[in-house]
Amino acid sequence: MEKVREIVREGRRVGKEDPRRVVHAFKVGLALALVSSFYYYQPLYDNFGVNAMWAVMTVVVVFEFSVGATLGKGINRAVATLVAGGLGIGAHHLASLSGTTVEPILLAIFVFVQAALSTFVRFFPRVKARYDYGVLIFILTFALISVSGFREDEILDLAHKRLSTVIMGGVSCVLISIFVCPVWAGQDLHSLLASNFDTLAHFLQEFGDEYFEATEDGDIKEVEKRRRNLERYKSVLNSKSNEEALANFAKWEPRHGQFRFRHPWKQYLAVGALLRQCAYRIDALNSNINSDMQIPMVIKKKLEEPLRRMSSESGKSMKEVSISLKKMTKPSSFDIHVVNSQSACKTLSTLLKSGILNDVEPLQMISLMTTVSLLIDIVNLTEKISESVHELASAAKFKNKTKPSKSDSGSIVRAKPNKSHDDDDDDHVVTILGDVGTSNNVDQSHGEISVDSCHHVAIKIDDDDSIPEKHEDGDIHVHTSRVSCEHTNASDLLNSGVKKN
Amino acid sequence: MEKVREIVREGRRVGKEDPRRVVHAFKVGLALALVSSFYYYQPLYDNFGVNAMWAVMTVVVVFEFSVGATLGKGINRAVATLVAGGLGIGAHHLASLSGTTVEPILLAIFVFVQAALSTFVRFFPRVKARYDYGVLIFILTFALISVSGFREDEILDLAHKRLSTVIMGGVSCVLISIFVCPVWAGQDLHSLLASNFDTLAHFLQEFGDEYFEATEDGDIKEVEKRRRNLERYKSVLNSKSNEEALANFAKWEPRHGQFRFRHPWKQYLAVGALLRQCAYRIDALNSNINSDMQIPMVIKKKLEEPLRRMSSESGKSMKEVSISLKKMTKPSSFDIHVVNSQSACKTLSTLLKSGILNDVEPLQMISLMTTVSLLIDIVNLTEKISESVHELASAAKFKNKTKPSKSDSGSIVRAKPNKSHDDDDDDHVVTILGDVGTSNNVDQSHGEISVDSCHHVAIKIDDDDSIPEKHEDGDIHVHTSRVSCEHTNASDLLNSGVKKN
Repeated sequence: MEKVREIVREGRRVGKEDPRRVVHAFKVGLALALVSSFYYYQPLYDNFGVNAMWAVMTVVVVFEFSVGATLGKGINRAVATLVAGGLGIGAHHLASLSGTTVEPILLAIFVFVQAALSTFVRFFPRVKARYDYGVLIFILTFALISVSGFREDEILDLAHKRLSTVIMGGVSCVLISIFVCPVWAGQDLHSLLASNFDTLAHFLQEFGDEYFEATEDGDIKEVEKRRRNLERYKSVLNSKSNEEALANFAKWEPRHGQFRFRHPWKQYLAVGALLRQCAYRIDALNSNINSDMQIPMVIKKKLEEPLRRMSSESGKSMKEVSISLKKMTKPSSFDIHVVNSQSACKTLSTLLKSGILNDVEPLQMISLMTTVSLLIDIVNLTEKISESVHELASAAKFKNKTKPSKSDSGSIVRAKPNKSHDDDDDDHVVTILGDVGTSNNVDQSHGEISVDSCHHVAIKIDDDDSIPEKHEDGDIHVHTSRVSCEHTNASDLLNSGVKKN
Repeated sequence: MEKVREIVREGRRVGKEDPRRVVHAFKVGLALALVSSFYYYQPLYDNFGVNAMWAVMTVVVVFEFSVGATLGKGINRAVATLVAGGLGIGAHHLASLSGTTVEPILLAIFVFVQAALSTFVRFFPRVKARYDYGVLIFILTFALISVSGFREDEILDLAHKRLSTVIMGGVSCVLISIFVCPVWAGQDLHSLLASNFDTLAHFLQEFGDEYFEATEDGDIKEVEKRRRNLERYKSVLNSKSNEEALANFAKWEPRHGQFRFRHPWKQYLAVGALLRQCAYRIDALNSNINSDMQIPMVIKKKLEEPLRRMSSESGKSMKEVSISLKKMTKPSSFDIHVVNSQSACKTLSTLLKSGILNDVEPLQMISLMTTVSLLIDIVNLTEKISESVHELASAAKFKNKTKPSKSDSGSIVRAKPNKSHDDDDDDHVVTILGDVGTSNNVDQSHGEISVDSCHHVAIKIDDDDSIPEKHEDGDIHVHTSRVSCEHTNASDLLNSGVKKN
């Protein structure tokens, strides 16, 4: 009894998690009941005989949760049945020419060679990803048809009936899955990406409060709820296989809603990979919140302003992306939040250079610097992600926003991102925004500050003082010329960003 | 033509990657040819009729790469066919009692309800993991049997024939997969884990050279080869789904080699998860090698000794685990390399406290501290991993080493790891080994140094000076009492460790 109640509870949870699962179960029931009645009714049965059961089998095996998966399996099955049926008839014909003693041996050899070859082909990564099921059905149909032991005209009849019943079952599945509450894998992938942006944005926007405000153990429930909310990002860490499966299914789907047939699903995976990298940093940051709890607040507060702004502005940038993904509009061509977070990086670097932390214990320093380095990574990743989303938006031909959002500076044309660097997915380079205003200090630090054309600002630390000077000037030029389109200088830009919020 | 050559090349690559794939293809061919000949020969065919094809189908669908997967699918299929056959006959009987007009309606309702319920159950995570295929076959068989439209005695015959052919096919698969060059998922999981330890160990042992020695661009090929070798660890990052699948299959496998039926496969996943966490840190470390290239060697060299030792000793510890896994012996109960890496941590902390880095630029500091913090994390993880492997070894009843390895200090009984902390998998806590020798300095740093019973040493930084004093003494006692079993003090221990290598 307890067991039954537990199962019911589990069922309710599974259904609540995604109510479309319940609908899917009903759809499968419907399709199967439909095809079964075909099978049951005498006239149809007379026509197809036992072969009618292939329709039932096809429905059971082909009907998947999303339209894309169903279509993919259906097409795989139909094509494989057709091709293998043809080859099987050929093999049967060839074997029957050779006389009754040799025939079974020849047939066994055919089946052996075909099965061995096809099984091996299933290990090819590209075949495995999209055609695995088709090859399986190919092996099956070939074996069934070629060794069926019937006379040849019966075989043709068998192959024909098998093919038509398979197609009958497959078409029922596809029609029901498309026209009765369809679940589009493409739409799912799109929503998944948007919600992933949302959860990361939530963490980054809350990070400042979590890190810089002493927790009062007043309402434990409240605190726990907040932590649970913060740690929703953990779902992003393991989203890879889910995203890949959805993208694979989505490729089979016809045009639906705003998704064309050749929607750039691959680009979704690229954005997803960057987002996951960011989630790894956030995971590290999250555990650092706890260990940094040991650092006296006085020390942490010294860096509060830039750190708070770095995380909250990155968060805002992600929030905007999430909103524009949901609306399927192009995100603002010039992302003010990215610029703001980068200018916060600059403030941080000035602060650090001023020696504000000189009296901090080395052990506390390690912990604090880890947090700082993670946030810098996140700022840089946010920029990469923003670029990647722009590529996605233009590849997917999202429409332009009808009314520009408040933070959209409109008139500024975004520079084309420089592709030559940062194309390694797994980079964890500690780059930091250089402070243009304090360029005179650079000599001291043996550093080279470069601002490249996609406002990615990196410090290369270098022992040679002469070269960076030159390099720097050129880069500063790039920077100011871009920023000055609307704002007179970086600090103005910064202030305007702060005021808005 | 070019296309064909490409396919052949791809095939050669796939076969070379794992030659067992070729063997598997032959095995499937063999099983199918065998079952097909059953099907072809008249006497057998007369007995089973078209139902004989279920044997062929079963072989095609059930024969998987590993014994565990094949057994799992075979058992799923046989049990599901049996249960669904029984229920199907029941449903058919019930419907036939109700008269010819109501019968088809009732049958359709049965099929609908059964298919909808079972489809929904497939979403339950536990069902999905192990019984997904069984439920699928359940739906299929029930639909086929209940609506077959035969008379009742024919149905019984149908169900009986279907079951016996399915079992015939299944048994052929299982026998061939067990007795012809078997591929055990359990063995694969075991080897995967050992080789993952190996690749991480390789990186950690090479890290010092890579980080502290200026690269000479002499032989580019040589450098590239070294880098490729170093970056083998990347395969560990995404090993999760592979490990989980193997563990799932392994649960089905009977005793083989040194693996019992109830081998603790779950513990393999736990060790694998810790190892993956370590791999994430190594990934970050690897990209830091490049960015830290900008830091003047003079500064890096200041920390060379402890950093080198931390990474190489962690690497050696993993190497030992890898070796003992391969031999299936218990790893040394007292891991000297873990202790060595921790004492290197202590040296590092002394060094940092001495203010050796006071004149380092903040930007370089961030970068350097990130490396330091990652290495500390790795040292701590190495210890956790070592514990986890010990749990695995005792749960799996690995045999004791016959001759103790040189680094095994034998007489020292390992303390039971303290379970109360560190059980959160996703921790990225920056803890650092406290320097017992400089305990007088602790007041200055507002820190508390604690050495817990599993020689995990953590600094809790605290504003209150009075409590840590007391705590510390107790812990130091624990530490020295353990170490003094063979060595007089920590530095002796350290030296002996260095001499050996």
